Amino acid sequence: MEKETESVPVDRFVEGRKTSATDLVVREVPLTIVLNSQELVTLLCSPAGLDYLAVGFLVSEGLLKTREDLRGVTVDDRAGVARVETATDAGLPRDALFKRVITSGCGRGASLYSAADVGTLEKVESRTLVSSAEILALMHQFQQRSEVYRATGGVHSAALCDTKTTLVFAEDIGRHNAIDKVFGRCLLDDVATEGRIVTTSGRVSSEMLFKVARRGVPLVVSKSAPTNLGIRLAGELGITLVGFVRGKRMTVYSNSWRIASDQG
Amino acid sequence: MEKETESVPVDRFVEGRKTSATDLVVREVPLTIVLNSQELVTLLCSPAGLDYLAVGFLVSEGLLKTREDLRGVTVDDRAGVARVETATDAGLPRDALFKRVITSGCGRGASLYSAADVGTLEKVESRTLVSSAEILALMHQFQQRSEVYRATGGVHSAALCDTKTTLVFAEDIGRHNAIDKVFGRCLLDDVATEGRIVTTSGRVSSEMLFKVARRGVPLVVSKSAPTNLGIRLAGELGITLVGFVRGKRMTVYSNSWRIASDQG
Repeated sequence: MEKETESVPVDRFVEGRKTSATDLVVREVPLTIVLNSQELVTLLCSPAGLDYLAVGFLVSEGLLKTREDLRGVTVDDRAGVARVETATDAGLPRDALFKRVITSGCGRGASLYSAADVGTLEKVESRTLVSSAEILALMHQFQQRSEVYRATGGVHSAALCDTKTTLVFAEDIGRHNAIDKVFGRCLLDDVATEGRIVTTSGRVSSEMLFKVARRGVPLVVSKSAPTNLGIRLAGELGITLVGFVRGKRMTVYSNSWRIASDQG
Repeated sequence: MEKETESVPVDRFVEGRKTSATDLVVREVPLTIVLNSQELVTLLCSPAGLDYLAVGFLVSEGLLKTREDLRGVTVDDRAGVARVETATDAGLPRDALFKRVITSGCGRGASLYSAADVGTLEKVESRTLVSSAEILALMHQFQQRSEVYRATGGVHSAALCDTKTTLVFAEDIGRHNAIDKVFGRCLLDDVATEGRIVTTSGRVSSEMLFKVARRGVPLVVSKSAPTNLGIRLAGELGITLVGFVRGKRMTVYSNSWRIASDQG
């Protein structure tokens, strides 16, 4: 595995005084995903967990659905290439994939943007309930885990949790890459996503909701803000969207029935 | 112009106690860019300055270079479509554009990613010099301007400045959209970009450097972190990259000769 950070020489100015120093910065690498010998896309990402990222990207794009469909994934770190073989090569929906929808946060070709597309996703019916105290505890764990962020200030984090613990955690310079790494790892390691909770450091816009809906995740919890479209989709897809989890506070934007008050 | 924010009903939990409230959230809309009758791309973005965004996107993609090339731009807010007509329709470099490079931060098809592509961009030769005190003052102005952010916590900002003042300012849910809106407005309003300074609220990864290099901008100033690839490109392209501008401090990652100490 390649290192996620790199030391660089810098000049630091403090109150107008210049000094030489060394700074730790996050690394950014290109990863080209090749699906069944066809070059699909090049992502710019953090260098860890590239197999998870390749698989998770395909999952999010709807090109890979189950562990059984996956024949294999090999990553060549040096060349920056991930080759994924799947059992059912239905032929790429080229038009769908290359109808570029450029998202606000991380640029994923959300080929399923329109209202009609929402109709193709099933509403998340999970009866998972969680208390607000459990959400605060999960976010506290989550913030503790963000190691690269603390060192460099340069990455986003995402995780899959049950109501008590963090099950899978990932960091990446792109907030959508971080989510894809989580879902890719879940598929590779047979971690069920249905009925569970996704936590994210990033803002929640529409494409995040499509990603979690595909994996049957009923709760998205962020320390940041959502967009109006993210909120509307969460409402329609049956997903509980929680934002601004900070200190002892949080704001619930949709389907708040899944969150119990701790008092009264 | 459409409103950039929307009020939504929320449930707020404070120390486990639930109350109903109203929250202001940032709006997210799709914008499809049609260039000379050909549908190019759909961006997810904030609803203000869609003409600037359409023009700036084409500028960043290398599909539009000068004011003279631009015949017209019309935006249909309701349909979410921007139609741009250019004088020289060289035919789209379809392969280049649709060779999807998905960037970490905002998903722009940086068709010019590879080392070879760096070679096609000219090094920024500007002799612009600035003092560290001027940079701190510019960032202070910049933070004061970020109105939607203060209201919603949901957007990025970018601006073009000279060494004393902010000339063009834009906000968007996507950090690259914000930069594109700035450059689009510069082209439409005949504001020169060469030798000037770009400020951004967001992290600085590789594609940001390609964008500013195309416009001859010698200084990029961010309150956040850069990536190693961003730093390397800044070095090669002759651009001064300043990060973590906070309080009285800043870190200079490349070409620090453009920044004068205030003392000694």
